[in-house]
Amino acid sequence: MNGAESLVHTLLASNVDTCFANPGTSEMHFVAALDRVPGMRCILGLFEGVVTGAADGYARMAGRPAATLLHCGPGLANGLANLHNARRAATPIVNVAGDQATYHRPLDAPLTADTEGWARGVSGWVRTATSAMTVGRDAAVAVQAARTAPGQIATLILPADTAWNDGGVVAEALPVPQRPRADPHQIRLVADVLRRGERTLLLLGDGALTEAALTLAHRIGAHTGAAIMAMGSNGRMARGQGRLSINRIPYPVDQAVKALAGFRHVVLVSCRKPVIFFAYPNKPGSPVPDDADVHILARPEQDPMDALGRLAEELGAPAASIPDAGPRPGPARGALTPESFAQTLAALLPEDAVVADEAVTFGRGFFPATFAAAPHDWLQVTGGAIGGGMPLATGAAVGAPGRRVVNLQADGSAMYTIQALWTQAREKLDVTTIIFSNRKYQILIGELANVGANPGRTAMDMLDLGSPDLDFTGLARSMGVEAARAENCEQFADLFAQSTRAKGPFLIELPT
Amino acid sequence: MNGAESLVHTLLASNVDTCFANPGTSEMHFVAALDRVPGMRCILGLFEGVVTGAADGYARMAGRPAATLLHCGPGLANGLANLHNARRAATPIVNVAGDQATYHRPLDAPLTADTEGWARGVSGWVRTATSAMTVGRDAAVAVQAARTAPGQIATLILPADTAWNDGGVVAEALPVPQRPRADPHQIRLVADVLRRGERTLLLLGDGALTEAALTLAHRIGAHTGAAIMAMGSNGRMARGQGRLSINRIPYPVDQAVKALAGFRHVVLVSCRKPVIFFAYPNKPGSPVPDDADVHILARPEQDPMDALGRLAEELGAPAASIPDAGPRPGPARGALTPESFAQTLAALLPEDAVVADEAVTFGRGFFPATFAAAPHDWLQVTGGAIGGGMPLATGAAVGAPGRRVVNLQADGSAMYTIQALWTQAREKLDVTTIIFSNRKYQILIGELANVGANPGRTAMDMLDLGSPDLDFTGLARSMGVEAARAENCEQFADLFAQSTRAKGPFLIELPT
Repeated sequence: MNGAESLVHTLLASNVDTCFANPGTSEMHFVAALDRVPGMRCILGLFEGVVTGAADGYARMAGRPAATLLHCGPGLANGLANLHNARRAATPIVNVAGDQATYHRPLDAPLTADTEGWARGVSGWVRTATSAMTVGRDAAVAVQAARTAPGQIATLILPADTAWNDGGVVAEALPVPQRPRADPHQIRLVADVLRRGERTLLLLGDGALTEAALTLAHRIGAHTGAAIMAMGSNGRMARGQGRLSINRIPYPVDQAVKALAGFRHVVLVSCRKPVIFFAYPNKPGSPVPDDADVHILARPEQDPMDALGRLAEELGAPAASIPDAGPRPGPARGALTPESFAQTLAALLPEDAVVADEAVTFGRGFFPATFAAAPHDWLQVTGGAIGGGMPLATGAAVGAPGRRVVNLQADGSAMYTIQALWTQAREKLDVTTIIFSNRKYQILIGELANVGANPGRTAMDMLDLGSPDLDFTGLARSMGVEAARAENCEQFADLFAQSTRAKGPFLIELPT
Repeated sequence: MNGAESLVHTLLASNVDTCFANPGTSEMHFVAALDRVPGMRCILGLFEGVVTGAADGYARMAGRPAATLLHCGPGLANGLANLHNARRAATPIVNVAGDQATYHRPLDAPLTADTEGWARGVSGWVRTATSAMTVGRDAAVAVQAARTAPGQIATLILPADTAWNDGGVVAEALPVPQRPRADPHQIRLVADVLRRGERTLLLLGDGALTEAALTLAHRIGAHTGAAIMAMGSNGRMARGQGRLSINRIPYPVDQAVKALAGFRHVVLVSCRKPVIFFAYPNKPGSPVPDDADVHILARPEQDPMDALGRLAEELGAPAASIPDAGPRPGPARGALTPESFAQTLAALLPEDAVVADEAVTFGRGFFPATFAAAPHDWLQVTGGAIGGGMPLATGAAVGAPGRRVVNLQADGSAMYTIQALWTQAREKLDVTTIIFSNRKYQILIGELANVGANPGRTAMDMLDLGSPDLDFTGLARSMGVEAARAENCEQFADLFAQSTRAKGPFLIELPT
């Protein structure tokens, strides 16, 4: 058995059975091993940013890591932006990058690059395999590392000779370390704060946004009067009918500051103290008021369900029924605006849908407008690296078979990883992509105004995506995805409903 | 004057007047400064790999660096693969990446990443600006560093507050250090080797492949009997009628070893000892025979023209006329094969064309077949990072106005940076893209065979680009580029001739 075969066997033994791949020459032994070792589902991406973003979306839905397969340092580099997003979501990924053979590397062949150095900035764990005999063990440790709470990227670099040499040994799955529990002192301290009755915010991050965690948080909030809010960017959040309706910290600095104004205490559950996305001259760096005290109920690696449950017990908070989000709205009519679109989406979103959100400016108001939609999960681009949405949707569809994935997608961001559509077509994934085509980098036009600039032609040209206009329906069809354009709410509603009834991917372009 | 304005003024003063950009929020002050400081040509890319690859192509043709403008660590990461290629071509680039404000960075906002760490692997010079008052000076040093022989990537990281704060100071251009000359001892040593009359190869790398350098090399070769060959991957090479016809070291290991078999001496001119792209079990790591002596006439940073000229003098080699490459062939007829295509290309390539070559397997034989074409320059993807071709063509067209750029492009590689077509349309660049659409990763099918595998369905699926087929004419039109498909040599010849007579970009898809 060669090293590559031992690696594939070990991944399967560790319950990693999906591999998003864009392989090259140095990975051919891994690819050859896939024929000889049945059981690994391999999904090809035409670009590495699709591969890594899909691995992120997959694990967010499946609750366990996929593997990637990337080609040497530059292939890894192409995947870094979406690995950055995955890192911010604490997504477990077993990130495999092939590389030069150990003895060839010192010769500095053209494709040789600092693979380890590039991996480090996104990985909680990095190892370069040194021998075919130990690569199986390396893989088992990588899976263990990836699954260690709250989840992280484990990068295994695979020099070609560690794959092709004989002597591979399959390693057994290693136990995932038990998730640490919050210290009793943390629980008591937060309970004391809540009993004071001062204005307190329970701020929930990833892992504390499941239906069960939200229900516990509501039990605490209903008993103590504490407000509940989610972090600005979250990997996955349970929403819709029957789930607690909460807002996120808004993206724009002034709105974020306003949302947290007046809170005397901020209790962090599975998140760190929130920070504004970018600094602006004479604006604060965090939306948390200067005079607020920040308390930690559960650090990101600690079990938030356990902490919330023990806090509710400590407080003697009784079960509390989730407030009704009101009736599901009907679809809107007429012109497409952020409001009319969101209403129509809330009306038509199918039960158990998964929303992959990279809508950027057009989508800022979608969140509250969809409280009363059917139950669904909402995935965000967590690290601000552009081009996360379409790969995330692609991977989510693999990780949540049978559920419709709805990708809310800004046009500018779509063009970073547009190749994802081809993978959706190839794998017949149930993804409805909705492109908000305003033909500009709208977010940057706002930012330029924030800068106080009165932009002239040169600056505006840098933010303009017209000239020529992008035809997203043409792009989709050229990659095998059916597509159509909707000019108003009625047309959108028809196309959207049609896409959710059919199997496979569909793209709807909305000129906005 | 703020820091951003001082930066733009300084770049212009240092003769950097072209900026390939994909800006974000942290770069808005730079963008705003572009309105207030006239003279910088800004070219927008929809993806950072287009931006950095275009900066590479530009400098190869213009002979001076462009600036880039990238958005924080993940934006830089998206550009790394083509910066890797540029590093291998020793292309000068002033690579500007915006970043979090200096005082915001410690808060670890979502987009914060290891920008410096990622830059280091591709850059000869990295600096993070610390103040608006010194960013002008930083920029002048960056241009100087980029232009220091043989050329390198100088990365200037621009925290947002160093751009927006007042106190900017415009810096004068710094002198480019004179290119070092080869030591007289090197010249004499190589002359002694050549006088022995043993089988000797003059191996030429970048900078030694201009028309003038090739003429000098031929003078030496004709006088001493030394053979002349180019490295396998070169940034720019003068070719066609009137230029010396030489081969490159072939890519496949067996052919490379055969090409260098029997040489007793290898003299390196502006290159390092050649290395095989990848290691293979039981194959050598370098094509240079084990018993050959390797001598250095000029290291990459040393002036190859000076060294070749002094060597010719030392040898008393008289001027020698360049051998006739024979008549320009006529276009081929019938089915499109690598041979018939190359013949047709050689027939129709316009005078002074620039070829950007990422043809991969289909193009392996194009080089000798185009010796007798009209004079042209040939640019290769030098670092093996996939997706170099289309951005390179885009930038070359900006850097060589009035010359037709012909991008010979494999289909699989095209999909990494297909967004380049939009920039070509927007800037009305004279690029003819020719897509060799074999609907597979053909190079990897060969590599899989080299591995000795008898590939099954799973492995072949990873190398197959059909299912669904990519429609490159549709992709091009959706980004504003006219396109058509050619099924045989006659149709290709018609479309190609038409594209070279018109202005602006055109794409020809060739099913192969």
